Amino acid sequence: MRETDRALERITALDPELRSFARVADRASLSASMRDGPLAGVALGVKDLFDTFDLETDYGSPLYARHRPRADAALVAQARALGAAIIGKTVTTEFAHASDVPTLNPHGAAHTPGASSAGSAAAVGAGLLPAAIGSQTAGSIIRPAAFCGTVGFKPSFRLLPTVGMKPFAWSLDTAGLFAADVPSAALLGDILSGRPMRIADDTPPFRVGLYRSRIDHLLHPGMIDAMAHAARRLERAGCDILDIDETDALAAARDAQERIQLFEGAVSLLHERRYHAEQLNAGLLSVLTAGAAIAPADYDSARRAARAGRREVTRLFEACDIILAPSAPGPAPLRQDGMGDPAFNRLWTVAGVPCVNVPAGRSREGLPLGVTIIARFGQDARALAGAALLERQLQDL
Amino acid sequence: MRETDRALERITALDPELRSFARVADRASLSASMRDGPLAGVALGVKDLFDTFDLETDYGSPLYARHRPRADAALVAQARALGAAIIGKTVTTEFAHASDVPTLNPHGAAHTPGASSAGSAAAVGAGLLPAAIGSQTAGSIIRPAAFCGTVGFKPSFRLLPTVGMKPFAWSLDTAGLFAADVPSAALLGDILSGRPMRIADDTPPFRVGLYRSRIDHLLHPGMIDAMAHAARRLERAGCDILDIDETDALAAARDAQERIQLFEGAVSLLHERRYHAEQLNAGLLSVLTAGAAIAPADYDSARRAARAGRREVTRLFEACDIILAPSAPGPAPLRQDGMGDPAFNRLWTVAGVPCVNVPAGRSREGLPLGVTIIARFGQDARALAGAALLERQLQDL
Repeated sequence: MRETDRALERITALDPELRSFARVADRASLSASMRDGPLAGVALGVKDLFDTFDLETDYGSPLYARHRPRADAALVAQARALGAAIIGKTVTTEFAHASDVPTLNPHGAAHTPGASSAGSAAAVGAGLLPAAIGSQTAGSIIRPAAFCGTVGFKPSFRLLPTVGMKPFAWSLDTAGLFAADVPSAALLGDILSGRPMRIADDTPPFRVGLYRSRIDHLLHPGMIDAMAHAARRLERAGCDILDIDETDALAAARDAQERIQLFEGAVSLLHERRYHAEQLNAGLLSVLTAGAAIAPADYDSARRAARAGRREVTRLFEACDIILAPSAPGPAPLRQDGMGDPAFNRLWTVAGVPCVNVPAGRSREGLPLGVTIIARFGQDARALAGAALLERQLQDL
Repeated sequence: MRETDRALERITALDPELRSFARVADRASLSASMRDGPLAGVALGVKDLFDTFDLETDYGSPLYARHRPRADAALVAQARALGAAIIGKTVTTEFAHASDVPTLNPHGAAHTPGASSAGSAAAVGAGLLPAAIGSQTAGSIIRPAAFCGTVGFKPSFRLLPTVGMKPFAWSLDTAGLFAADVPSAALLGDILSGRPMRIADDTPPFRVGLYRSRIDHLLHPGMIDAMAHAARRLERAGCDILDIDETDALAAARDAQERIQLFEGAVSLLHERRYHAEQLNAGLLSVLTAGAAIAPADYDSARRAARAGRREVTRLFEACDIILAPSAPGPAPLRQDGMGDPAFNRLWTVAGVPCVNVPAGRSREGLPLGVTIIARFGQDARALAGAALLERQLQDL
């Protein structure tokens, strides 16, 4: 209980201001629950989009106030079975749509903590706890991780189960993890997934593709510098760096992600929109209405574009082992300007490939910047190994 | 309300013996609900694996006794938005695993109605209502449809949404429909999915592949006759018939289906197994225990085999437009011998391709037999058109 106690103390001291938790488990029930297994003693935060049988789960919505699921989400059940202590539910935006949250960015209170996994990102970024569960449909793990200066790991699509997570878009929703550093994220991913992905002491150099997107004009100067710096550090570690230009099929897949998300979101939340529209936030309601207006034929063509994009992403990994790309256009925007843009995450989410956000310095204003290391579908261990190499190189400054 | 009233009357008169409904909506709430739209007046039964906000939903398990979901499953919400009356929840096996149900087979009380969608199949097969929603993970739409002498339509994977359905195996679970005849199933599929699939008056002849599986030695003589008869009738209608032999990759995908189902089922129902094992039926518990013992690496290799099988199934449709295959080894077994074998459904489920069960005569004992018409992924309209052609040919005796 040592670690769990420490996490509870930090939450009690710091979360009244940070507001990263929707609710916290009480000490008695934590003590009573089992604590054997490879995750024994690990205090885990869980995004409030995942069901917990012993903690209310409201998906960030007043519609689900005081909702007590009958069962844990599968990923939560796995974490508990492995000994983890579910220390509380972290704040999510309403049904994971990019509306606002009360959570602060631990590196700048005037700035957004990022999108729907904001509570998990802020809690880990502020050092309240060692790790947390989150989810990504467009960019909701990688982006808040970058904004909050922590590691975010979006595994290959459905490597971690999404059963018992409130769905938004079934062909995109991906469960993932936040941790303070890459080796911790890899250790947790290894134990939860049962696939080898622990970080070895030495990593062979990689062939690194520098991804040149057609939306690179959206990048802030600080991010352009951070990308260049990360590439130089990887080169110094013996990696080959090559440029990869976005093709038509890849750009089309990026566009398709948004249509798929809109269409599926409107289907998933049809009941809530039809019976309780007045209780939904305005931004979510307009997104669901837009999604409901997409013709099934247009959705089907978006899915074909996504499939072609997935094949094209697979081909990219013939020329390189890992890809380096921005995690966001720049640092966290001011709260009044929204929760940030997932444009740079969409392609990798729709492709279902593993992504790791690595903190990569600070902007001129002192806010964290993050870059993404991406690997081929199913090669989560390689994405993490590449991210660990970059993390070490950036720390050796 | 005319149609709905008729269905309620039939249910009141016949279901006390048939036991196809877990619970029925009351007349007042049915009258109060809206009844505009293309499905206005259609009384729809819903397998009790799908959430309904106004009817208890127990997934066939005492663990979920008196469970009232906060929202409709997406498919139920769509049906209601289109005007359908959700007339009640049809009996399912516990968490859709192939354990027993009280439901009778309307064509022979001593025989099983088939697996998890048994209530929906029996209710439609007995003429209690025009249509019902079901789901299939191995063979739980096609098999009970065949056993109960009705049409079953398992669409392409995720054509109809599964959000709000209690998951068993996320890469296999498929929502589908039961109806009295193929044109009705097609009309309902067309309206619910928003994709054109209504049956035209005239159908061009098809190139029909007769599927020769490596497990054909399991077929009963009655089914061998039914398959030959169906092929002759299609030939008489102008179709070309060719034999298709099962390859190694196809047989491997069939085997992979079972491992995928076991592994994912154990993940999906981990909470229930860990906290409430003593309340699960013995068959389900042993299946979940077996699934939990499958190594992630073996599951990953099963998924690769499934993927290779999907590619191979796509290639089959270069030589033919539709495939004809048995829906089950034979007619419904006696209840004491279980709920029947999904062996002949596994490949088509894991391939995600559209399947339609067409009633195809009777066995020597007078029990219904059914054959499956299969088309390429996304070509649900073609599967239904082929099924409609066969249905007409079999009726013109």
